[in-house]
Amino acid sequence: MSPAKHWKVYLSGEIHSDWREKIASGVEAAGLPITLTAPVTDHAASDDCGVRILGDEENDFWKDRKGSGLNAIRIRTLIKEADIVVVRFGEKYRQWNAAFDAGFAAALGKPLVTIHPAEFNHALKEVDAAANATAETPEQVVQILAYVIAGRLN
Amino acid sequence: MSPAKHWKVYLSGEIHSDWREKIASGVEAAGLPITLTAPVTDHAASDDCGVRILGDEENDFWKDRKGSGLNAIRIRTLIKEADIVVVRFGEKYRQWNAAFDAGFAAALGKPLVTIHPAEFNHALKEVDAAANATAETPEQVVQILAYVIAGRLN
Amino acid sequence: MSPAKHWKVYLSGEIHSDWREKIASGVEAAGLPITLTAPVTDHAASDDCGVRILGDEENDFWKDRKGSGLNAIRIRTLIKEADIVVVRFGEKYRQWNAAFDAGFAAALGKPLVTIHPAEFNHALKEVDAAANATAETPEQVVQILAYVIAGRLN
Amino acid sequence: MSPAKHWKVYLSGEIHSDWREKIASGVEAAGLPITLTAPVTDHAASDDCGVRILGDEENDFWKDRKGSGLNAIRIRTLIKEADIVVVRFGEKYRQWNAAFDAGFAAALGKPLVTIHPAEFNHALKEVDAAANATAETPEQVVQILAYVIAGRLN
Amino acid sequence: MSPAKHWKVYLSGEIHSDWREKIASGVEAAGLPITLTAPVTDHAASDDCGVRILGDEENDFWKDRKGSGLNAIRIRTLIKEADIVVVRFGEKYRQWNAAFDAGFAAALGKPLVTIHPAEFNHALKEVDAAANATAETPEQVVQILAYVIAGRLN
Amino acid sequence: MSPAKHWKVYLSGEIHSDWREKIASGVEAAGLPITLTAPVTDHAASDDCGVRILGDEENDFWKDRKGSGLNAIRIRTLIKEADIVVVRFGEKYRQWNAAFDAGFAAALGKPLVTIHPAEFNHALKEVDAAANATAETPEQVVQILAYVIAGRLN
Amino acid sequence: MSPAKHWKVYLSGEIHSDWREKIASGVEAAGLPITLTAPVTDHAASDDCGVRILGDEENDFWKDRKGSGLNAIRIRTLIKEADIVVVRFGEKYRQWNAAFDAGFAAALGKPLVTIHPAEFNHALKEVDAAANATAETPEQVVQILAYVIAGRLN
Amino acid sequence: MSPAKHWKVYLSGEIHSDWREKIASGVEAAGLPITLTAPVTDHAASDDCGVRILGDEENDFWKDRKGSGLNAIRIRTLIKEADIVVVRFGEKYRQWNAAFDAGFAAALGKPLVTIHPAEFNHALKEVDAAANATAETPEQVVQILAYVIAGRLN
Repeated sequence: MSPAKHWKVYLSGEIHSDWREKIASGVEAAGLPITLTAPVTDHAASDDCGVRILGDEENDFWKDRKGSGLNAIRIRTLIKEADIVVVRFGEKYRQWNAAFDAGFAAALGKPLVTIHPAEFNHALKEVDAAANATAETPEQVVQILAYVIAGRLN
Repeated sequence: MSPAKHWKVYLSGEIHSDWREKIASGVEAAGLPITLTAPVTDHAASDDCGVRILGDEENDFWKDRKGSGLNAIRIRTLIKEADIVVVRFGEKYRQWNAAFDAGFAAALGKPLVTIHPAEFNHALKEVDAAANATAETPEQVVQILAYVIAGRLN
Repeated sequence: MSPAKHWKVYLSGEIHSDWREKIASGVEAAGLPITLTAPVTDHAASDDCGVRILGDEENDFWKDRKGSGLNAIRIRTLIKEADIVVVRFGEKYRQWNAAFDAGFAAALGKPLVTIHPAEFNHALKEVDAAANATAETPEQVVQILAYVIAGRLN
Repeated sequence: MSPAKHWKVYLSGEIHSDWREKIASGVEAAGLPITLTAPVTDHAASDDCGVRILGDEENDFWKDRKGSGLNAIRIRTLIKEADIVVVRFGEKYRQWNAAFDAGFAAALGKPLVTIHPAEFNHALKEVDAAANATAETPEQVVQILAYVIAGRLN
Repeated sequence: MSPAKHWKVYLSGEIHSDWREKIASGVEAAGLPITLTAPVTDHAASDDCGVRILGDEENDFWKDRKGSGLNAIRIRTLIKEADIVVVRFGEKYRQWNAAFDAGFAAALGKPLVTIHPAEFNHALKEVDAAANATAETPEQVVQILAYVIAGRLN
Repeated sequence: MSPAKHWKVYLSGEIHSDWREKIASGVEAAGLPITLTAPVTDHAASDDCGVRILGDEENDFWKDRKGSGLNAIRIRTLIKEADIVVVRFGEKYRQWNAAFDAGFAAALGKPLVTIHPAEFNHALKEVDAAANATAETPEQVVQILAYVIAGRLN
Repeated sequence: MSPAKHWKVYLSGEIHSDWREKIASGVEAAGLPITLTAPVTDHAASDDCGVRILGDEENDFWKDRKGSGLNAIRIRTLIKEADIVVVRFGEKYRQWNAAFDAGFAAALGKPLVTIHPAEFNHALKEVDAAANATAETPEQVVQILAYVIAGRLN
Repeated sequence: MSPAKHWKVYLSGEIHSDWREKIASGVEAAGLPITLTAPVTDHAASDDCGVRILGDEENDFWKDRKGSGLNAIRIRTLIKEADIVVVRFGEKYRQWNAAFDAGFAAALGKPLVTIHPAEFNHALKEVDAAANATAETPEQVVQILAYVIAGRLN
């Protein structure tokens, strides 16, 4: 009789593995009413967008500023309207932007789910303490979504 | 000419009787434009979801923490977007989560309707004082919804 | 190409003349994309709803409390989601609820339009100072809506 | 050991009797840690302030606008930082600004206390339903403040 | 050189044991810069305040409403300005107001500390999941405050 | 599978060139899911709307007040619900309303894009510092929207 | 008996005349309990602060960005905590930052007072419509403050 | 005549060098009206506080959770009431909590200053884009504070 809620889930963080695709296919297989959103995950585009559109910079600091200004429009808008924010920390790089997004989401009172290898448990303790759940795999995230949204527990 | 508002009503509290079903069938019979939402009402699933998805815990305190972290994603999201929050206190159990939801909804400025037997009037006086109405039966809640939403008074 | 915004306009205040109907037919004639909302305007229903649904009261103060608790669910929900709040003060009665709604809307930052005879200008100066416009007739309100929403000025 | 909270109480509404003075002397006699605030209660000053400072107006509507613009600076600032807002409705005049203040305070989630003769109970039912308490006399308001702030009940 | 922050800690819940006094003396012994606040803990006064000040009621439901309206002024004001909210659940009574306060504080984003016997762990899992810490004794709460506020760990 | 987000972009500022049309045709050519909104850009209508609907004024100051009160209903409503606010400063006039809109949007945390000739860089430094990007041409704004919304970079 | 409120008034806008000093001496002469705040009004310091502290920039656009980033810390913090924001538009320069501050303050719901010559009335109509009062001289602003804060009308 | 604003500055991030002390001594030498706050910077205490106060845990994940729950009370409270948040990223460790704090502060609209070696410019571009200023040394932070708070530029 009533239209079911359609959920918005933002997938923040690591962009060098296929974890977003795994969640997307899991969500599709489960038939969950979810729109998945994400930052621009093309690394080169994300780095170069500012200068490509608005003109070159000699100083890399300002090149980065122009790019991150554009990326922030997308990221913050999507986080602000997300029902759930999932943040993945991968094995490589410092990934400060992932932690920044987690802090941003936490301050807005967004439900937060973190995904990372157990070896990062101690380094991420402040972030995990702000999260509703900490998973290790994309499959667990799909199960969380199926439970939270549809009440399904395998 | 204009699309009527579609209302969202969250039904919090007691999960051991069929009060939600009574409200649902009353709302359907009255043809009211309402989406009813609720927590996961399968008691076992609600208790076990955390460890089933995220791995066992030896200590029941942390088993409960894992589960309630997941349940909170659903509950808080649905309360935050509800137009009206209905909270029922049944005869059994302590039902602190029902009172917690009522306080949560009150702090967000959500219209609140409580349902409980008259014998709880004194114990629930702080909760009832935060409510727009206190009913004793699901049928009264349906009548409230019909009046508030459609202006109908039998 | 893009869907036009659909506006929500809440019509508060006087319930003993046909000003809401005049605005409704003006809006329809102008083909404006507006949903008009209002309190329950059946005076008897609005007075009696509480006791009819929730049981009689000996003391009229509490009879009124039960009713106004229900009416507040509708009124506040609709004001909170309105794009524009129109408040009319008629010739009769004290109409404190109209002024209360105006104050409520003002505190939420809602655009406010007042309608009243010029003779009330001084008595309503605080309310009018919080309004974007003060009109004397429903026809002016329709013209305001046509201008604000569609940019049309006759 | 710890500094006690100092409460701010805004007294809105009727300006033709000495109810504010009665509350002030009661608060002083009781030694309560309260700062009482109020609008400018000199009726002529409150009407004329705009044109006296900013220049005459031929049209009384704009004379009133100039004055109410200034009064609103004081009123809204003091209501926004009040812990408790008390609103009195007297026997005379329409007092729409009192009801406006009550609605403004309610939308901000301020605790509200109304004072008025019982004969206004029905006309003020929406306002009273938004209040934590409805009193008839200034003495009762002092007793409320003594209880709420100091836990004292005579 | 700089003035240290003075913290406000609200102590909600059970009123039949001396846990507030234990925290107060622990805080004093530790010399912590804290103002402790609480509801009116005189049970009879808290029940009777409404009718004592505002006049008798035949119906106990409305007697309770008058009282809880007054108590809410104090409780909500103090919770809203608290830095930390501590909620204790004792062995007796249903204590729905304690859980209501916890939900209210959680929705406001207040840091929450719960105190209760381990036997309530399962019944309070939703409340504990919203808390920064769950203690069993007032002494632990004092240690928490000493660590959080002064960085002291025995 | 999932419905894509539809973005709302408000175009504030200069009304004497066809920059809005250029953005509109660029957005249409790119097939971007965007609703573009704007103030009433008919200069005469925007100046006269108040007195045309609500009656003449002898004093131009109040004529302007009547008009700007109406315009503010449209402008603020559309800015408040915009995902992105674009503000253009042209070569002529003082355009204080454009800078006012930029400040209004910034205080609401809206992503802001400014467009202006490089010669205004110094005069607009405070405004540009609040912006995510500063462009010189409408074509760049279309490219920004294509990147931010669709991840496309030519 | 009670401590009077101490008001904070932020003086934004034109920095090439002594209007701030006139208000300061008027406030002092009147003995009003006000703290006046302002941006850094040393034009050269305000332009150069960024590169002086954080290192030179070849591109003036980024020199300005570094400076306006620092100035924004001061300006926004002081506006956010101001009770009243006064904005002066002088005869020279475009003064977009003044209009930006006015928009910023308006979106925060701050009481706004504008000061400017009558010749700017039309160009500033949107800004003036957001203001509680429009003055032409600093002396009028002092009179406004004396009335609003102390109820004094000469 | 008027009391100067006393500023609160929270120093987040790296805890293995003496940068906080350098800022503190610079602030003292400059006589700036600032209270500096920080997390508990005793690494062992910060790791162990949870289990030391609330009882041991076999699983390190929950040991960390107990500790980070307590630390969050301090950190979030101090960030929420800070006027300025300074975040330092040092050479060692992943420092995700620093980036989390930066995101948290950004979402609250707090002015943000980052400090880090230039080698991290690219990795921190999203964080720096949210900041009002990016410094490399504590001395620069002191100069920023002297300029922002006292208008002093050496």
